[in-house]
Amino acid sequence: MNDFTNIGQTMHEYLNKGAFLVAGKDKPNVMTVSWGMIGVMWRKKIVVVPVRESRYTKEFLDKEGEFTLSVPFEKMSKEIAFCGTKSGREVDKFEALGLKKVKGEKVDTYKVGGCDAYFECRVLAKIPLTADMLPDEVKEIAYQDSDYHTLYIGEVL
Amino acid sequence: MNDFTNIGQTMHEYLNKGAFLVAGKDKPNVMTVSWGMIGVMWRKKIVVVPVRESRYTKEFLDKEGEFTLSVPFEKMSKEIAFCGTKSGREVDKFEALGLKKVKGEKVDTYKVGGCDAYFECRVLAKIPLTADMLPDEVKEIAYQDSDYHTLYIGEVL
Repeated sequence: MNDFTNIGQTMHEYLNKGAFLVAGKDKPNVMTVSWGMIGVMWRKKIVVVPVRESRYTKEFLDKEGEFTLSVPFEKMSKEIAFCGTKSGREVDKFEALGLKKVKGEKVDTYKVGGCDAYFECRVLAKIPLTADMLPDEVKEIAYQDSDYHTLYIGEVL
Repeated sequence: MNDFTNIGQTMHEYLNKGAFLVAGKDKPNVMTVSWGMIGVMWRKKIVVVPVRESRYTKEFLDKEGEFTLSVPFEKMSKEIAFCGTKSGREVDKFEALGLKKVKGEKVDTYKVGGCDAYFECRVLAKIPLTADMLPDEVKEIAYQDSDYHTLYIGEVL
């Protein structure tokens, strides 16, 4: 595989289908991310996950500074949908869905069992998006309620 | 190819070897980027390129809002090194290196001939990095001179 454009294409496809973002060491919470990036910054391999101000997961990311990304290929679409619509404030999603908690090897949180690719990350930088950075077309798509994302830049460990 | 982790690995390798970023419609300028990201945001395919405040390229990006990324695989390392150290304020790098200007199909700027992968992009959002977003370890690696990057989020056209 050595076509950068295809890598991009494939990346886009996988991300678009959603991945599980897990944070929290004692009572881990799982949410769905279907937007994000992968790349290199500051000589480090990184993944970037956008998390909205209102999200329960944000509290764990800010407090504990670690997360995992578990990517299922072509499966678990029901679980992805559930984790993208229910909040961990109201329901333990691991329990409700019977998801398997797999202890991280390099971080003090968990991964979702049965996925095909995993990233274990520590939060390296946080970039809160603000209205002045974004054009109207983007605000219409994503921020009509002003619930802006913070971009969490995670170093892949 | 259906291993997300390998996609990440390959992405990291290609990016680390450098790509040509071109902006400017009348007198295009080329610079080297060896950091960056690819992904999905706001339902769009994106690439993200970091450009420092001091860079000549920044003027074109801000004024014209379009750019291309040309990625050479395993070659052109001399040209990548040259474009990463010389400024377009002092030298026309296309001319000095004899690089072939290839007209963009979807943007009013150029690509670098002879590369293996291309992205044509319009600037969708600009995120200026500031000291408060970054930990000391990152500032030491990249910002000892306070010449911060702006992250240009480009929609892949």
